[in-house]
Amino acid sequence: MKSAPLIRIGICGLGTVGQGVWRHLTRVRGDLETRLGVRLELARASVRDLRKPRSVRLAPSRLTTDALEVATDPNIDIVCELIGGTTVARDVTLAALGCGKVVISANKALICGHGAEIFAMARKHGGHFLFEASVAGGIPIIKALREGLVANRFPLIYGILNGTCNYILTQMEEQDAPYTAVLGEAKRLGYAEADESLDVEGWDTAHKAAVLAYLAHRTWVKPSQMIVEGIDRITPADFKHAAALGYGIKLLAVIARDFATDELSVRVHPTLLPESHVVAKVSGVFNAVSVRGDVAGTTLYIGRGAGQDATSSAVISDLVDAVSLLKNDRRAFITARKESGPEQRAPGCRLAPLGHIRCRYYLRLKVSDEPGVLARIAAAMAAQKVSIASVIQSAQEPAGSASLVLTTHVSDERAMGATLARLARLGCVQEPPLLLRIGDFAD
Amino acid sequence: MKSAPLIRIGICGLGTVGQGVWRHLTRVRGDLETRLGVRLELARASVRDLRKPRSVRLAPSRLTTDALEVATDPNIDIVCELIGGTTVARDVTLAALGCGKVVISANKALICGHGAEIFAMARKHGGHFLFEASVAGGIPIIKALREGLVANRFPLIYGILNGTCNYILTQMEEQDAPYTAVLGEAKRLGYAEADESLDVEGWDTAHKAAVLAYLAHRTWVKPSQMIVEGIDRITPADFKHAAALGYGIKLLAVIARDFATDELSVRVHPTLLPESHVVAKVSGVFNAVSVRGDVAGTTLYIGRGAGQDATSSAVISDLVDAVSLLKNDRRAFITARKESGPEQRAPGCRLAPLGHIRCRYYLRLKVSDEPGVLARIAAAMAAQKVSIASVIQSAQEPAGSASLVLTTHVSDERAMGATLARLARLGCVQEPPLLLRIGDFAD
Repeated sequence: MKSAPLIRIGICGLGTVGQGVWRHLTRVRGDLETRLGVRLELARASVRDLRKPRSVRLAPSRLTTDALEVATDPNIDIVCELIGGTTVARDVTLAALGCGKVVISANKALICGHGAEIFAMARKHGGHFLFEASVAGGIPIIKALREGLVANRFPLIYGILNGTCNYILTQMEEQDAPYTAVLGEAKRLGYAEADESLDVEGWDTAHKAAVLAYLAHRTWVKPSQMIVEGIDRITPADFKHAAALGYGIKLLAVIARDFATDELSVRVHPTLLPESHVVAKVSGVFNAVSVRGDVAGTTLYIGRGAGQDATSSAVISDLVDAVSLLKNDRRAFITARKESGPEQRAPGCRLAPLGHIRCRYYLRLKVSDEPGVLARIAAAMAAQKVSIASVIQSAQEPAGSASLVLTTHVSDERAMGATLARLARLGCVQEPPLLLRIGDFAD
Repeated sequence: MKSAPLIRIGICGLGTVGQGVWRHLTRVRGDLETRLGVRLELARASVRDLRKPRSVRLAPSRLTTDALEVATDPNIDIVCELIGGTTVARDVTLAALGCGKVVISANKALICGHGAEIFAMARKHGGHFLFEASVAGGIPIIKALREGLVANRFPLIYGILNGTCNYILTQMEEQDAPYTAVLGEAKRLGYAEADESLDVEGWDTAHKAAVLAYLAHRTWVKPSQMIVEGIDRITPADFKHAAALGYGIKLLAVIARDFATDELSVRVHPTLLPESHVVAKVSGVFNAVSVRGDVAGTTLYIGRGAGQDATSSAVISDLVDAVSLLKNDRRAFITARKESGPEQRAPGCRLAPLGHIRCRYYLRLKVSDEPGVLARIAAAMAAQKVSIASVIQSAQEPAGSASLVLTTHVSDERAMGATLARLARLGCVQEPPLLLRIGDFAD
């Protein structure tokens, strides 16, 4: 193998994922070298603190605190950006791409916030940006969408993209436990961050949805252009009501495109899924992505969405693709991409207005327990042409309050938004209503 | 695009899949050309009967009855072998690879029977053989195993790989209908072939298992080296007994490798799966593949396993990979593969002896309804150290017969084989016992 070309890898960020990549890559390197016909060298890594103990052993000469030094080192061919965040990570990514390197990233927040800039930089300087680890961890969903299903257009992609939320929802349902208690337990177990807001408010899922929407539709959708709702207002009672109606509750990202009108919608919200639906059975920290292709039909992918090992598996898969890019006639490849690459295609789709985003709804209200309340609520809904499908009313603490759970026939986001505004103005409604969507996905 | 290189595609066999590929490729060609920076031409196709009406329109000059003419046409770069069978298909595949072309195949029987020869021919002449469509139709499982999960070793792969069998089992369970009635209905609906034996006896699943085993372990396992059992002896009563025990029944391929002993086993048999298991919920013509990776953990892939559209999606995905191979510096790529490609690795594993293949078992016996029968059967099992976990005995037609359903604690294939031989010699056992495996897969 002396004559085999040498490929040098730099890792920016030796946290959980960085150490995992280093460890697994050290283990499988010989095998990959044989398969790829190259020599691989873990050349350098950047860390925040040189003295912090780590599970992987590196010669001090390979370590630096300057991530940009790794990113721009002319001896390094492939840069793994595993720092996280969107400041240093962005600088590192753009600098490495500016040198024409291949950058591998697990950073969905960065891609969501700066993807257009990143891909433009890659095109301009002949670099490549690979991001299998950014969505759904160990599931090779990026490769499936981009390569395996290349013959398809994608009218509908939906799935569970945040393991923390799915763990919390699963525990709430199985243990009949309130949100705050389960969240506390998840933090103790390391399944939730100290600051849980990015996960439980749906933003992490929104970042991943933006990545998938870009892959499937070549359109950047900002979280501010999505409906994004989290799981923090769901109660054990909601699981019981949902179960009585035949549903489970999952936090889903939904990316829907109508190819007749070319309208695209991207949304993140807790969703009632029929109990018989396979995705409703995906529990704990697992992720699931359902992809409806217009040729292949629906395919479904389930696996661990995060964690050191699952993410390392995805990063190493990108590393192998990076080596192939570097080994082949790179200029020819890049020229073709520059002239005609997918990023150059006209997006061809626009965001759907709220009135075109349609589904059935689940509405839980805390109301005064007095005559005429249901009539007033029903009238507020009827005024927006929202048609009630079912009602469950039950007494609630404190005395004088009642819980009202309604499901609707198919309505739309505009009508439901107006309905919620009307309901909020009714004196008998004691707290902001909880609105959940019902996911009637055919498969 | 005038300056873009021209890639010419030939299709051998314009049956259901061939027509689907032609139709979908015609539709998505412009888009693929833009993405790939090449021009694609559907140059020629071979058929058995020139006068047979088809859903796709071709100029007569592009049609021939001589598949080898397409395979060896010096103007054709990529050959799709969609003839089926293992005679002409083999000639066509070897001839095209002998010319250094890329061959795309959906033909699991051919790969299973002649894979070693095919890959050797590809290596020798600088050709490539791609086969995404050969297993699990629209699910990009080949790409997932080979590329997406490249960092992993695979201690366990199992799944539903035959849609016909899964349709039949699902109908039997849901309709409480006997095998022969459901099979007849499946034939009427086109879900089963006129000669169903390849599907229902498990051979089609075995072919696909051989392909997956090769991908995961670089070892060719012949169906004759596997345990292969079909679904034709399962009755509605088995579904009821299984349900009472908390299980569903699926025909599974199981590819297990113990990396401590380096023993590999490949088997195909109806399997009791816990009702709560996601794979047990996969119904109708859908396929499912569960892949346990030592880095990524378990990932699960579900989708349509056959049919014109799903298979076309997979073939077109291979076509795009083929174009990338042809565009890049092919010689360099191939040289590296020749020197050090995965096919050159020592297999490093051997077939597990029957005594090392362990699981729990379900055994249904038709026995004489007379005193002492259970004692004799229990003694026959105890003689092989097979320990009984549960017994359900019920009267059966005709009078004088009883049905005995036993489950065992963990045993092994050698002991169960010997047990079945002993039971067959007992006068009180009225027909050969039905043996099913219980799939206690952790995830």
